[in-house]
Amino acid sequence: MNIIKPGDLVDLNDYAPDFTGAYEKKGQTKRRLKKLHKQLLKLQELLYAGNQHALLIILQGMDTCGKDGTIRRVMAGMNVQGCDVVSFKVPSTDELSRDFLWRAHRAVPPKGKIGIFNRSHYEDVLVVRVHSLVPEDIWSQHYQQINDFEKMLVESGTVVLKFFLHISKDEQKARLESRISDPTKHWKVMESDVRERAYWDDYMQAYEVMLQKCSTDWAPWHVIPANKKWYRNLVITECIVETLRKLDMRYPEPSVDITKFTIGD
Amino acid sequence: MNIIKPGDLVDLNDYAPDFTGAYEKKGQTKRRLKKLHKQLLKLQELLYAGNQHALLIILQGMDTCGKDGTIRRVMAGMNVQGCDVVSFKVPSTDELSRDFLWRAHRAVPPKGKIGIFNRSHYEDVLVVRVHSLVPEDIWSQHYQQINDFEKMLVESGTVVLKFFLHISKDEQKARLESRISDPTKHWKVMESDVRERAYWDDYMQAYEVMLQKCSTDWAPWHVIPANKKWYRNLVITECIVETLRKLDMRYPEPSVDITKFTIGD
Repeated sequence: MNIIKPGDLVDLNDYAPDFTGAYEKKGQTKRRLKKLHKQLLKLQELLYAGNQHALLIILQGMDTCGKDGTIRRVMAGMNVQGCDVVSFKVPSTDELSRDFLWRAHRAVPPKGKIGIFNRSHYEDVLVVRVHSLVPEDIWSQHYQQINDFEKMLVESGTVVLKFFLHISKDEQKARLESRISDPTKHWKVMESDVRERAYWDDYMQAYEVMLQKCSTDWAPWHVIPANKKWYRNLVITECIVETLRKLDMRYPEPSVDITKFTIGD
Repeated sequence: MNIIKPGDLVDLNDYAPDFTGAYEKKGQTKRRLKKLHKQLLKLQELLYAGNQHALLIILQGMDTCGKDGTIRRVMAGMNVQGCDVVSFKVPSTDELSRDFLWRAHRAVPPKGKIGIFNRSHYEDVLVVRVHSLVPEDIWSQHYQQINDFEKMLVESGTVVLKFFLHISKDEQKARLESRISDPTKHWKVMESDVRERAYWDDYMQAYEVMLQKCSTDWAPWHVIPANKKWYRNLVITECIVETLRKLDMRYPEPSVDITKFTIGD
């Protein structure tokens, strides 16, 4: 299984980004995905009606790993009204002048809704660590702070699902080159993507430490094989459906006996 | 001293609300308070210029204990631009649909500023506990969640000062009666104030547990004798000044040599 257990030592070389499970090609997953989307829609309605839980989905991974694509494809099976996507970019002055969890906490979904974080507070143990954007004695505290924060969210009724989209260095090269050779995709290529690629090994190390330190009983990390987009979408959708199903949600009982209502002329 | 140490058992009967230290009457404290206000103004400018710390002041206490008065009197010695007051009232639907710390976290002061919470996230272990507004297995988690939250704030550069304004039950009676007999103060009397007074003992117990469980090394509780308003104002102002002074702040060095500037005609 691709769930990191608390205390596990993580070597990302042990996780094959090319893995596609029992499937060989995209076509084999279409029916399954369609079925999952139907279930997802029903579960999302239950989530909204019950108003007891929120679902927070956190997506992290290297540039081109497919965060945007995942959101597009997974949300295709959702009611958009019940789902908010928040992208975490370079922090603003207002954000930098508070603790790093401030902007994440502001953005958490309310009960009844699904929130998707495209990048997240984990950037503060990833890019911040790799480039020493703050001193080590500051970022090294973030792991425990994140665990405490997520624990509080979970204890308050939010389910936290964390996906690390795992692609290989070769796959990133192919995706960057494909974007560069396609003029309609040039807008997606940032100089920073190419620059950050030089820090690949540092990032892998930062991800490994993150997976080790912040995979908790209440909010474990899932390592998603993401070289094949169709398999990535399938696994993530399966995981979301499975997670919502386990909540064993019911439509709430009406507080009055509706059958006794008289509808006037 | 009126600082609760972590692990201390707290019996509020041990703390005299009438205590006035070395002073006997208001007149004796005026010069001292004036001096403190001057120092406070200077320290606040340093806080702003240095932009390294924020100061969060939390005020809790029974109705009529003097939270509003404290804010008015203590802020009289501050630059209002660098100080934000946030009053925590009955939570909105939007707030109730997130964890209880959500609205508190949104309201924390940025670096360089002072934030005052008039009531706070502690209501979730006070009124919520006394009236069982959420089940015990939920509110009983709040103590640890608050400690973790405040620890993160402190580790991120925010100084957290917590004042419990301690008045006696007799003093509350006198203050309520005085408000009722003065038509210009009727707007301050709420039916709920009178109703809540019936729960005095339950509140005292809730405050004692709060003081015991949430007085931490990083954010201790101060019990302020508050029957005498002038003494309360003095002690709190002293504590704020002392806390800011201990930060040993300096004006930042200019990043360019200003003395070499030529100011054109």
